[in-house]
Amino acid sequence: MSTIARRGIHYVQRLNAANVSSALLEKGQGRVIDASLTLIRERAKLKAKLVRALGGAVATSSLLGVPLGHNSSFLQGPAFAPPRIREAIWCGSTNSTTEEGKDLQDARVLTDVGDVPIQEIRDCGVDDHRLMNVIGESVKLVMEEHPLRPLVLGGDHSISFPVIRAVSEKLGGPVDVLHLDAHPDNYDAFEGNIYSHASSFARVMEGDYVRRLLQVGIRSITTEGRAQAKKFGVEQYEMRTFSRDRHFLENLKLGEGVKGVYISIDVDCLDPAFAPGVSHIEPGGLSFRDVLNILHNLQGDVVAADVVEFNPQRDTVDGMTAMVAAKLVRELAAKIAK
Amino acid sequence: MSTIARRGIHYVQRLNAANVSSALLEKGQGRVIDASLTLIRERAKLKAKLVRALGGAVATSSLLGVPLGHNSSFLQGPAFAPPRIREAIWCGSTNSTTEEGKDLQDARVLTDVGDVPIQEIRDCGVDDHRLMNVIGESVKLVMEEHPLRPLVLGGDHSISFPVIRAVSEKLGGPVDVLHLDAHPDNYDAFEGNIYSHASSFARVMEGDYVRRLLQVGIRSITTEGRAQAKKFGVEQYEMRTFSRDRHFLENLKLGEGVKGVYISIDVDCLDPAFAPGVSHIEPGGLSFRDVLNILHNLQGDVVAADVVEFNPQRDTVDGMTAMVAAKLVRELAAKIAK
Amino acid sequence: MSTIARRGIHYVQRLNAANVSSALLEKGQGRVIDASLTLIRERAKLKAKLVRALGGAVATSSLLGVPLGHNSSFLQGPAFAPPRIREAIWCGSTNSTTEEGKDLQDARVLTDVGDVPIQEIRDCGVDDHRLMNVIGESVKLVMEEHPLRPLVLGGDHSISFPVIRAVSEKLGGPVDVLHLDAHPDNYDAFEGNIYSHASSFARVMEGDYVRRLLQVGIRSITTEGRAQAKKFGVEQYEMRTFSRDRHFLENLKLGEGVKGVYISIDVDCLDPAFAPGVSHIEPGGLSFRDVLNILHNLQGDVVAADVVEFNPQRDTVDGMTAMVAAKLVRELAAKIAK
Amino acid sequence: MSTIARRGIHYVQRLNAANVSSALLEKGQGRVIDASLTLIRERAKLKAKLVRALGGAVATSSLLGVPLGHNSSFLQGPAFAPPRIREAIWCGSTNSTTEEGKDLQDARVLTDVGDVPIQEIRDCGVDDHRLMNVIGESVKLVMEEHPLRPLVLGGDHSISFPVIRAVSEKLGGPVDVLHLDAHPDNYDAFEGNIYSHASSFARVMEGDYVRRLLQVGIRSITTEGRAQAKKFGVEQYEMRTFSRDRHFLENLKLGEGVKGVYISIDVDCLDPAFAPGVSHIEPGGLSFRDVLNILHNLQGDVVAADVVEFNPQRDTVDGMTAMVAAKLVRELAAKIAK
Amino acid sequence: MSTIARRGIHYVQRLNAANVSSALLEKGQGRVIDASLTLIRERAKLKAKLVRALGGAVATSSLLGVPLGHNSSFLQGPAFAPPRIREAIWCGSTNSTTEEGKDLQDARVLTDVGDVPIQEIRDCGVDDHRLMNVIGESVKLVMEEHPLRPLVLGGDHSISFPVIRAVSEKLGGPVDVLHLDAHPDNYDAFEGNIYSHASSFARVMEGDYVRRLLQVGIRSITTEGRAQAKKFGVEQYEMRTFSRDRHFLENLKLGEGVKGVYISIDVDCLDPAFAPGVSHIEPGGLSFRDVLNILHNLQGDVVAADVVEFNPQRDTVDGMTAMVAAKLVRELAAKIAK
Amino acid sequence: MSTIARRGIHYVQRLNAANVSSALLEKGQGRVIDASLTLIRERAKLKAKLVRALGGAVATSSLLGVPLGHNSSFLQGPAFAPPRIREAIWCGSTNSTTEEGKDLQDARVLTDVGDVPIQEIRDCGVDDHRLMNVIGESVKLVMEEHPLRPLVLGGDHSISFPVIRAVSEKLGGPVDVLHLDAHPDNYDAFEGNIYSHASSFARVMEGDYVRRLLQVGIRSITTEGRAQAKKFGVEQYEMRTFSRDRHFLENLKLGEGVKGVYISIDVDCLDPAFAPGVSHIEPGGLSFRDVLNILHNLQGDVVAADVVEFNPQRDTVDGMTAMVAAKLVRELAAKIAK
Repeated sequence: MSTIARRGIHYVQRLNAANVSSALLEKGQGRVIDASLTLIRERAKLKAKLVRALGGAVATSSLLGVPLGHNSSFLQGPAFAPPRIREAIWCGSTNSTTEEGKDLQDARVLTDVGDVPIQEIRDCGVDDHRLMNVIGESVKLVMEEHPLRPLVLGGDHSISFPVIRAVSEKLGGPVDVLHLDAHPDNYDAFEGNIYSHASSFARVMEGDYVRRLLQVGIRSITTEGRAQAKKFGVEQYEMRTFSRDRHFLENLKLGEGVKGVYISIDVDCLDPAFAPGVSHIEPGGLSFRDVLNILHNLQGDVVAADVVEFNPQRDTVDGMTAMVAAKLVRELAAKIAK
Repeated sequence: MSTIARRGIHYVQRLNAANVSSALLEKGQGRVIDASLTLIRERAKLKAKLVRALGGAVATSSLLGVPLGHNSSFLQGPAFAPPRIREAIWCGSTNSTTEEGKDLQDARVLTDVGDVPIQEIRDCGVDDHRLMNVIGESVKLVMEEHPLRPLVLGGDHSISFPVIRAVSEKLGGPVDVLHLDAHPDNYDAFEGNIYSHASSFARVMEGDYVRRLLQVGIRSITTEGRAQAKKFGVEQYEMRTFSRDRHFLENLKLGEGVKGVYISIDVDCLDPAFAPGVSHIEPGGLSFRDVLNILHNLQGDVVAADVVEFNPQRDTVDGMTAMVAAKLVRELAAKIAK
Repeated sequence: MSTIARRGIHYVQRLNAANVSSALLEKGQGRVIDASLTLIRERAKLKAKLVRALGGAVATSSLLGVPLGHNSSFLQGPAFAPPRIREAIWCGSTNSTTEEGKDLQDARVLTDVGDVPIQEIRDCGVDDHRLMNVIGESVKLVMEEHPLRPLVLGGDHSISFPVIRAVSEKLGGPVDVLHLDAHPDNYDAFEGNIYSHASSFARVMEGDYVRRLLQVGIRSITTEGRAQAKKFGVEQYEMRTFSRDRHFLENLKLGEGVKGVYISIDVDCLDPAFAPGVSHIEPGGLSFRDVLNILHNLQGDVVAADVVEFNPQRDTVDGMTAMVAAKLVRELAAKIAK
Repeated sequence: MSTIARRGIHYVQRLNAANVSSALLEKGQGRVIDASLTLIRERAKLKAKLVRALGGAVATSSLLGVPLGHNSSFLQGPAFAPPRIREAIWCGSTNSTTEEGKDLQDARVLTDVGDVPIQEIRDCGVDDHRLMNVIGESVKLVMEEHPLRPLVLGGDHSISFPVIRAVSEKLGGPVDVLHLDAHPDNYDAFEGNIYSHASSFARVMEGDYVRRLLQVGIRSITTEGRAQAKKFGVEQYEMRTFSRDRHFLENLKLGEGVKGVYISIDVDCLDPAFAPGVSHIEPGGLSFRDVLNILHNLQGDVVAADVVEFNPQRDTVDGMTAMVAAKLVRELAAKIAK
Repeated sequence: MSTIARRGIHYVQRLNAANVSSALLEKGQGRVIDASLTLIRERAKLKAKLVRALGGAVATSSLLGVPLGHNSSFLQGPAFAPPRIREAIWCGSTNSTTEEGKDLQDARVLTDVGDVPIQEIRDCGVDDHRLMNVIGESVKLVMEEHPLRPLVLGGDHSISFPVIRAVSEKLGGPVDVLHLDAHPDNYDAFEGNIYSHASSFARVMEGDYVRRLLQVGIRSITTEGRAQAKKFGVEQYEMRTFSRDRHFLENLKLGEGVKGVYISIDVDCLDPAFAPGVSHIEPGGLSFRDVLNILHNLQGDVVAADVVEFNPQRDTVDGMTAMVAAKLVRELAAKIAK
Repeated sequence: MSTIARRGIHYVQRLNAANVSSALLEKGQGRVIDASLTLIRERAKLKAKLVRALGGAVATSSLLGVPLGHNSSFLQGPAFAPPRIREAIWCGSTNSTTEEGKDLQDARVLTDVGDVPIQEIRDCGVDDHRLMNVIGESVKLVMEEHPLRPLVLGGDHSISFPVIRAVSEKLGGPVDVLHLDAHPDNYDAFEGNIYSHASSFARVMEGDYVRRLLQVGIRSITTEGRAQAKKFGVEQYEMRTFSRDRHFLENLKLGEGVKGVYISIDVDCLDPAFAPGVSHIEPGGLSFRDVLNILHNLQGDVVAADVVEFNPQRDTVDGMTAMVAAKLVRELAAKIAK
């Protein structure tokens, strides 16, 4: 028998020992989950109170880290991303002003409620189905506290499903989604995993969570990827035709008639020249300025967003991709806040 | 006025806004701390129950991560260490057996209660004095659950003070400490910070927490460092004389007549050839085998331990120092478990 | 006398020992070359049989590696490229579908006949003149087997001369060549070497192998480079005027009235931001999407192609340029196959 | 008391020992400065004599290195840049011809007068005020020798102030400045330092040294940065609107009616994909070709220039950014020479 | 269905298409194998002739590369090792003299017969059983040519089984084996693979190929590893007791009464400080000088040897481990030659 | 004709233009050299005055940088070393106390007179013969100023010849030399260059500058290297026998009856595990502690020393070898100062 542990961020100990009753185990797991959610809730309450005391904010972005990497098909480094992105946001090499002039040091623009303790929960034997629910619950706890809006730091792309589901459920209706990515992430299941990072948008589209889904930056897509898009009515903009589509994409207007706009940015939408620190290097992508042009010019009420798939284990020594991910988060925060 | 944020892992938002009462703030902080401790407690309870159900364990090592880096005088990367060490412990390139034959997959040898959410607590404005208490409380929560014993993953070396204090308080008396390090870490205060990673052993020696303190691997020491050692009766073994001291150090017997032995390993006790991923590169240190020879031959009841100052931001691309830190943790786990 | 061996991928042992007759040596070399060509032939036969059994293919790309680096003027790493490109083509981080929808797992799209054992042949004392013939013979052996068409993996750019010569000779007439590169590679000789990677297109143009030669991406060119281009009627498109030439280059129609189109891609046609793993870093080049736009829109029957000058010894740790070279090969395979 | 030396390229020994009179100290410093300037003068004389002997040159670029990094707010690596840029200019991986055909081996195009011994002067206790004067004097010594024109290799951006001041004073009137940078560098003072690399253009604009200041590539700017620009009449072109401004910037005509044009290129005007070796990674910048298009098409008499903020300590292993900085210097040399 | 190819150096195309008869396929494979062996034979003949013409050699080492990595349990980079080791042997940074004074430029000391074309053979659908036979046949072809003795360049450690088997079969009896490694590589099978690099010495011991097997450097061993050693009578020297065993190991006398000595060096016998470029980083190993002391002082007739498990994909940028592997090969060549 | 410049740190412009008289050129060169020496002299005077004002010093080490790399046979990076070593000496990651307790911040222990402007002088067309004299003159200028003693920062090893010659000439008699190196550096000439870094100790031994020359760490030596040692009476201690020689080498007593002891440390005396940043990676060397043990225990009056062959272009990203070179300099400074 092999004694090599399977690869992964964390070894998940086998807790179902013969002489531990499953009732006992589930009870213990439940208590760990409750404590985890309480920690998020208390931080959200405290931060929201502060923002409200400052006054005048209609919407404030609130960072929520989801350090989950095991639903990736290839590498699991995105589980290490949230603290690296936070470090890059506040690192001394740049100032706290966004390109259009908002100050991130103003708590009415940006707050932070910390990370969902994903690895701690997994290590207690909690399965993915329940874990996805915990992520969704966490998102809702943030939204509970006016004027906070979730700005989620992945993690691999599998987390967008529970986040978008929670946003839609909490708001009481579908949203429009702008999805920047090299891949459509819409396999029915990937290597048998329905929660795979390559299947999240199939999950999203099966519910009633989304009206329009626009995918931008696509340049690695199979026959199934195109068929699924057709089935779900996804609007795909492939890089092959980006020079033709550019004008349209730099003048988007979304979210009217629904609950608002959700933006999901997979860092690999960028060409690897601009963002080498990703698990799936796929040449031929967007430039950083292309992405900012799309974001800055987008019209619509951005109710939540995520930045996913930054993999610190593949970044340059000086963390160039961390700075890229951080600037995406910074500009999204400015987009959300008002 | 400068708008550049000070360097650090996390920007700590100024929460003392004029219109938020300090009572309100403290109450919010208290709730966040309570939730943090509850999460540790619940995980410790669940893991201990499992071990006890398996039966037969007198002592089981229990990983407790303390991702704290801001008390370092130079770089703050050790805050990122705990998840990287865990990944390396379970990484597929090696098996789960320790050099002397214990199996880490047996929960009676090694368990894990997760991380103290240091950055989340700091980001709520909690000061270092209170933060040190939270670390100590977390250690005690682990020790509360028989047969768990804390095997702490730093973090910078400042964390050893609250950990050793908690261990001694919980056991009701002093311990002997074996401290492997390039530096004595016994400044009265460093750049005004009494909680500095360069002052932790001054703090430790001021209490009644330790009977004998042996420092091994020392090769960067000032006049003050030698004076403090004399004042506190520390037994310092400098690298200059290691070839002479080797026989003594490879045959240590500690902890008799006190509550046991505490081992604190600063990864920079190793020569940087063996452990390049540290903040303070100080050539002329121990080889990895030197350290293992000291550990394997030590006689004494190891009641707790820490491995600190691994800095992933300075590691090689393939994580050589992560593997080094992980093997130190693995062999310490085998030393603790019985 | 110096005992330092000259730099190079392989040390070529001096085989002309006084007491070994040159007839004996040549006979031995001949046998080694024959065995090398037999190996290529047998692999080509086997692969072509398979494709024909599958049926329906008019043209199938067939990888042929030429691990030759010693005709480079600066670094010789391209000799290591072919196995790295193959690894990147099949690496698990991307799927097997090309941008326009062909599946590389279908043997009718892509086959592989392995490498010409360049270093083994050189190490037996075979000179460059004969080596170039061996390369040409290998190309012809592939073309012998319907429907295979050579997709050559360099090696440095010196290999394009024997490959294009062989293609033209085998097809019985000239081809049009689309050549993407930072340099014109048309020196009469470079540092006395007529087979230099900086002279291959002077050699190519001296024969009757090529009708039109278009060079795209040029940004490092001397007076001689411009004079040679004039002499040979080469159409040079320099980066200085790329914004003006872009429309023309993205709508090329080549190969009519001749035996077809040959495409030669020196990876350094790309800006080093997109392809850092090259011997000659020359800022100001094409983006990866620029290259794909030119390729995808090119009209013409592509009879053979090469991708050269990828230098794994200069690549990023995670092999970004290997992925770039691999994607160029993948898209060329799709362009060739029908 | 702390015994840790403050960070910096060089430790500057405290020379004001109680028993050394300040007169004595100043006299010694003066002699060191005189010797430093003499060395520059003698080299400039020798090089200019050579150029004049060759005949026919109206203007010849002359490299002057200023290895100064301590006025940077974050990292100080630019102090190591000048020798690395020189190595890259002459490195064997490219030839000596510029894109538009000038030969850098012709001394009428490019000469070199070496470095101002910045660290040696600082280490003798000379303060920044006097150091800035030494830099200015060095520039004037070069301009003294017809037909040499200064092409300054930084160093951090603080050096542009004394250089531009010296150029204007020597020419007897203001110049127009084309400034490519991610940042406006126009803080009134930065962290109290009026000579900060973030304040050089505030200093420049306070004098009568400049008529028009055009800033291109800006994407990290605070409220103060915009206010200062307004106050000083600076023409700022932000990256947010670059696609709109591109045509204007690629057709500049400057310097008429004043003493000519000065070009200051901060390497971080480029996107970090193209120039990772900088202290301040700010995604969303210019491509290398964008910069060359602006330079090649600029009309005006370029009287001097600088390339600053290349940080070799952050460059890729193979020195990609060194090649980028070198090519900027090469193309500027061609622009200056006539 | 997933379209992601499985990880591996080479994608092995599925050649068993329905409409290709297996007889046809096998015939084609057979021809490819024959051509491969012919290439080895012809090179061995030519090189041996040269050595014999020079005269006076009793034994000459002959490099034989086996670029096989797919039997590794973790990473497959060792397949890229042979050309990198050759480059390092002849690289200009060192001279051609071994520590005890033999000159590698003398063909009587060192020759080279090239690589077994492992990937080309695998890509034709040949299975591992047959591949192992091809490796063994290649070894025998070298031994056929007096005075050549095989010095095999791995590849992963799985190749030692067919090599040792061939050596013993060719010599007509068992040999003694000195095996330096961090791991015993004696699992009965690893993850079901009997040809795994973790099982080669179980295979070796099952035959009658070896009398004594000494394993040195062991520090990662499971219960099974110790049980297998006991079963097969292996003499294991673990690093835990190396300081005690050193004297014995530095004075070995082997091979008397059998056909000679075989030396198998897994590069990971060295501490990762000395050899970071390996797949399995296991701290606490031998120093490079420890290994040389063992080799230099070994008494016995070394009939063949291998150096395996160097992984260029994990090496430092400047190829430190390539130099380490090369020096091991150089000193082994000197040990073999006489 | 090739337009590629030869490799080297600096391009040395051809100054002997037809129409510039050689008298004029020599006069200009002479003035540049005079100014260079004046700069050294003035700095030495100022620093010595300071030390004397502090009082009580018999001997003070004085750093003198010699950034010369072009006499290396392989790589030329050591020309970049002096500023990197200075940065590492004062870098904030360690304190200013040496292992045996001297404080480097005390000017009586360590001063700095800056660099000889090697590249500036070479770029004026000065040949190596004269350049070596300039280095020697610079050393003498330092020794002129009581109590300064030269602690030279290389540069490649060719500089030790002019430095030792100058020391002996200035002191009026021979010295004993302790030389730590992987190579004997005693070729009569290397590739025709009598000033090669591989020939410096042949030059040294030809004069009357040295009585005893001890070489320690040798592990790459040719027949010529051993013959030259015999001819010159050099005492060579090879690594092959280091375990036997260790006791002798750790108890050296040198310099009695001559003018004192000179220590020359080539960083590659260390195993590359401890010092990867060297041009010539030669496994099997000394540990850092081995070197310190030899230095600390050496008895004798150290009159001057050098640390050479650190190559920053081969160092790890975080500058481990810079720290190693700096610590060697620090401990040598403590050895010299009294």
